[in-house]
Amino acid sequence: MTTTDQLVGAEVTLDALPLRADLRGKTPYGAPQLDVAVRLNTNENPYPPPPELVADVTAAAHEVAAELHRYPDRDAVALRADLAAYLTGVTGVPLTAANLWAANGSNEILQQVLQAFGGPGRVAAGFVPSYSMHPIIAGGTRTEWLPTPRRDDFTIDIRAAAELLARRAPDVTFLTSPNNPTGQSLEPDELAQLVDASPGIVIVDEAYAEFSDRPSAAVLLPTHGHKLVVSRTMSKAFAFAGGRLGYLAAAPAVVDALQLVRLPYHLSSLTQAAARASLRHADATLGSVALLRAERDRVVAALAAAGYDVVPSDANFVLFGRFADAERAWRAFLDRGVLIRDVGIPHRLRVTIGTPEENDAFLQVAQDVLARNVVVEETEKV
Amino acid sequence: MTTTDQLVGAEVTLDALPLRADLRGKTPYGAPQLDVAVRLNTNENPYPPPPELVADVTAAAHEVAAELHRYPDRDAVALRADLAAYLTGVTGVPLTAANLWAANGSNEILQQVLQAFGGPGRVAAGFVPSYSMHPIIAGGTRTEWLPTPRRDDFTIDIRAAAELLARRAPDVTFLTSPNNPTGQSLEPDELAQLVDASPGIVIVDEAYAEFSDRPSAAVLLPTHGHKLVVSRTMSKAFAFAGGRLGYLAAAPAVVDALQLVRLPYHLSSLTQAAARASLRHADATLGSVALLRAERDRVVAALAAAGYDVVPSDANFVLFGRFADAERAWRAFLDRGVLIRDVGIPHRLRVTIGTPEENDAFLQVAQDVLARNVVVEETEKV
Repeated sequence: MTTTDQLVGAEVTLDALPLRADLRGKTPYGAPQLDVAVRLNTNENPYPPPPELVADVTAAAHEVAAELHRYPDRDAVALRADLAAYLTGVTGVPLTAANLWAANGSNEILQQVLQAFGGPGRVAAGFVPSYSMHPIIAGGTRTEWLPTPRRDDFTIDIRAAAELLARRAPDVTFLTSPNNPTGQSLEPDELAQLVDASPGIVIVDEAYAEFSDRPSAAVLLPTHGHKLVVSRTMSKAFAFAGGRLGYLAAAPAVVDALQLVRLPYHLSSLTQAAARASLRHADATLGSVALLRAERDRVVAALAAAGYDVVPSDANFVLFGRFADAERAWRAFLDRGVLIRDVGIPHRLRVTIGTPEENDAFLQVAQDVLARNVVVEETEKV
Repeated sequence: MTTTDQLVGAEVTLDALPLRADLRGKTPYGAPQLDVAVRLNTNENPYPPPPELVADVTAAAHEVAAELHRYPDRDAVALRADLAAYLTGVTGVPLTAANLWAANGSNEILQQVLQAFGGPGRVAAGFVPSYSMHPIIAGGTRTEWLPTPRRDDFTIDIRAAAELLARRAPDVTFLTSPNNPTGQSLEPDELAQLVDASPGIVIVDEAYAEFSDRPSAAVLLPTHGHKLVVSRTMSKAFAFAGGRLGYLAAAPAVVDALQLVRLPYHLSSLTQAAARASLRHADATLGSVALLRAERDRVVAALAAAGYDVVPSDANFVLFGRFADAERAWRAFLDRGVLIRDVGIPHRLRVTIGTPEENDAFLQVAQDVLARNVVVEETEKV
């Protein structure tokens, strides 16, 4: 064991380093990675990959392992073709590899979009509360962040939003459907109104699209491809969070633009091969999505029946409350063996839909927490 | 087959997109990925992973595949501990996981360093010609690039460089040892002079360190940890180019700083597991390094004996010439089945050291090219 005295460089403090001023005092993004029995905090798919998928990923890894001394296909063409085929299948839009781009998680996708179309002197807009990485990635690319609050019920006033986009003309606008952490989707005609109103690029973040009945924004690509980007991930519905594969669909010229900013060979041979193996099992993996949607509806109903205020959700998570003190309530759940997420919205917490057993455990704790009066009384509501 | 007419978004041109002005007219970075018999253009290790490493990587992939629905360890602690143990073993510097950071290739490492310590309003310096990604990553993070030419023999005038660093005070300075694409290393006392002179962060890019006899800059971390970062990669000596694993050694506070800018979960479970498996076979993999060093010396001697002008190299590549027209000479090698690299240095080309058979093929073509008089005559030398 190395003691602090022996630790090389231990005398150097973060304050003493020439860190960028805008990073000073910040803390790294990320939910606590705690070893708790029931983890319902990061919107993972609770169902492990089926044995045949594990076998296929293993075989794919074995195949590429023998060629690890060579750089991967820099353009990941085969993977992009597979993603195009998948997305064409679920959206009906005839996409090809030229329409697709992939990266290490959708965070890297969004970072690349901002490197190409945002950056210093440019503005990125979002409707908050939403995915908390959007402003962080904007900051990381030095893009000015323009947040606009949603309505009290977390929906977007489309007419007001369109007016704002036309007036403020952000270079990049983030829309989310379904929205994390609130769960609501936007309809294609609403998306079209917002894209029409915006002079800049609009990214529709569809990380949770497979959990929703609403059509993908990809249906707008044939008409709005000059400023529409649809981002997705294999982390959630595809149960591939550990594999880190985000992607987008767009006009081929947008993909060309991203190739100007991507780091060369950003996607490893293993990532490309494992993602392709996972896509081959899409039907089986997405079977779990139907289970999760049914469980989501059960959890929403049970929470509401218990007396909680629940935000309608199209995703694999539910925002609920209202707690007098969300941080204290989060701790109450954790103390009872259930890790959920305090997303920073006053009086609300977010729970990921797990297996039926995990959801039962959560609902039981939710009853217990309610009984201990940490929920806001009607009169205390903001 | 989808025709151009049917390609969604085909009517959108790159010029019509609101791309950042500094990206207009640029082309993506990257050597041509051509299907040629002898590929000696990207400094890969020509020796495939040994069967026991392939088996271990496969077993590691199998193990993590069953948990792919979960996010990876965001901090990659086990991998960083393994990297620390390896680097401690080869440098004698007692490093721990707190000193190490890892990312998807050293390009991502360098990008994160510039996001934390460079960016708009800040300056990054380098001594050119050097790794061509340094200015590209500086550009990608909107860091101003300050290039300083090396001497005609590609060495650095240490006294002049120290004076320049003190006077211009770049926020980040890139040093390279061995330098790509010229091959020369810097001695620790030279590195120390340059770090001492620089008020800002100094990154010593040691992508090719295992091919050199010179001590790692890591030996300076105990005394210079307040502004020294040593970056490395598993792509070259470790024969892990397809696995994409770059890393750095620094003071723990530097690692803390990078955690403020890294994208969460940037390293997949598969990458972490495969890199750890590869590190377990370091002795075997690095055995190929001794072969490559011997081959490098043989290639250098043979090129010189044939009449080429060869830059001394500590790495797994050799810069040689002098060609009247490097681009035409590159094509002459390619036409004869040998893909080498035109790195943009007038009159010179770079060849990666391959297997003895590949090197023989290269040397034979080099003789042939020489006989066809595409080499600069003495009197034509610049």
